Amino acid sequence: MNFIEKYEKARNEKNSIISVGLDPSLEKMLSPEDRPNDTDVINEIFFNFCMDLIENTKDYVCAIKPNSQFVLFPLTLNQLRKINTTAHDYGLVSILDHKLGDIGSTNASALYWIKRAGFDALTFSPFAGNIKEATEQAHKNDLGLICLTLMSNPQSVWIQKDSLNNGVPLYEKIAQEIRNNGTDGCVIGATGHVTDDDIKKIRKIVGDDKVFLCPGVGAQGGDVKKLLMSAGENIVIHIGRAIMYANDQRKAAEEFYKLINKYRKQIA
Amino acid sequence: MNFIEKYEKARNEKNSIISVGLDPSLEKMLSPEDRPNDTDVINEIFFNFCMDLIENTKDYVCAIKPNSQFVLFPLTLNQLRKINTTAHDYGLVSILDHKLGDIGSTNASALYWIKRAGFDALTFSPFAGNIKEATEQAHKNDLGLICLTLMSNPQSVWIQKDSLNNGVPLYEKIAQEIRNNGTDGCVIGATGHVTDDDIKKIRKIVGDDKVFLCPGVGAQGGDVKKLLMSAGENIVIHIGRAIMYANDQRKAAEEFYKLINKYRKQIA
Repeated sequence: MNFIEKYEKARNEKNSIISVGLDPSLEKMLSPEDRPNDTDVINEIFFNFCMDLIENTKDYVCAIKPNSQFVLFPLTLNQLRKINTTAHDYGLVSILDHKLGDIGSTNASALYWIKRAGFDALTFSPFAGNIKEATEQAHKNDLGLICLTLMSNPQSVWIQKDSLNNGVPLYEKIAQEIRNNGTDGCVIGATGHVTDDDIKKIRKIVGDDKVFLCPGVGAQGGDVKKLLMSAGENIVIHIGRAIMYANDQRKAAEEFYKLINKYRKQIA
Repeated sequence: MNFIEKYEKARNEKNSIISVGLDPSLEKMLSPEDRPNDTDVINEIFFNFCMDLIENTKDYVCAIKPNSQFVLFPLTLNQLRKINTTAHDYGLVSILDHKLGDIGSTNASALYWIKRAGFDALTFSPFAGNIKEATEQAHKNDLGLICLTLMSNPQSVWIQKDSLNNGVPLYEKIAQEIRNNGTDGCVIGATGHVTDDDIKKIRKIVGDDKVFLCPGVGAQGGDVKKLLMSAGENIVIHIGRAIMYANDQRKAAEEFYKLINKYRKQIA
């Protein structure tokens, strides 16, 4: 099974298109006086946070998405493997939000370790231009590659939307590269500056089979219905802080699950 | 001392503008039959490789530059701290080649850990557009930020050179952002597609105080003299594979040191 098939299986079995963030942060989790300084203590707290989060949300999500900037420094490779094994046991796919963006020989090292840690896919930043090469390298390692296309943060507009390649906005050109090179999907923000038309345009360029990974819902305030109408079913709606730092993670996940599935039915 | 001052001190004390790569790779280090599968064994081999490399090259370099895609998965935070402490004890600066490129709240997490691991600076990818924000965040953590400007791999041309922002090539616009936001330096490739004129143009835009970090020499075949003539003294010439995987690392480092210092004298 390739990544898109794994994702579709998880989506259908879990009846969910939600991914949950696994982004432990001392600042968010603990008040200043409670924050430990010992690396081993932090390591244990963070690992338990990730495992509990999977346990609390497993009935309402189809994917976990740890971000490298939160987990790679404090957690070990063996802990990442345990996290991924647990996710797989519950029928979830695991996407490392890595935003890999280096030269080929260096990307090869990252892909080796990401595969070894048990992830199913990773996110990729196209700034180094090597979308084709990275897609081939990821597929050789049996990993899906999801390429940043139009990000959720407003500062990205000048480079992703306003910069032109042969007269075409950069995000459209990136979408063309994704289509032409068999890349598995696009990361597309779901916040104010990304319009319905932008999302529809990207979907039209890349085709219906690519997975859209859409952060921006919840803490970042994106609109779920807009997204589903424009992007279609092949989408992972990512909920980070609004589940992770809810008082009751299970309940927050359930509420997003119900809300999103209500809209899925409406547009089906 | 800010990062640029730390770099200048190391450069003057070591009489070197070379950084050495700390990029351990099973594939490069060991033949297939000798490659261990146990993560703890790999961890020890990689840590020793990094420590030996510092020991072997410390008299000829001013900086170490581990790349995250090689070290973050297999090494622990405590090992990274030991590597950085050792580098500092020898008067070297330590730059994490991280190519950080996420939204602000996520970058904040990376910067916390990178500081905690003892690095002096990191590389940054501008694709998310937030150069100003990331520079401020890095400086709050007492870290230097070195922004990808024109990379060494030929696939990067379509996005970095051929894409235009208000009619200006993207790498020039990025250079303007680096100048305007007090970012500490630029990553500029030293390979064929990067011309003398490109390097001079970037130097003119950003000013003489910014540090140029230039990979591409050695294994990638860049031309040292061209670089020095165009970029000036505020430069770190990065040598990766040509020292790391030389039969004699110390000798290889010494040879680069002599060659580069010969050209430095010629243009002084």
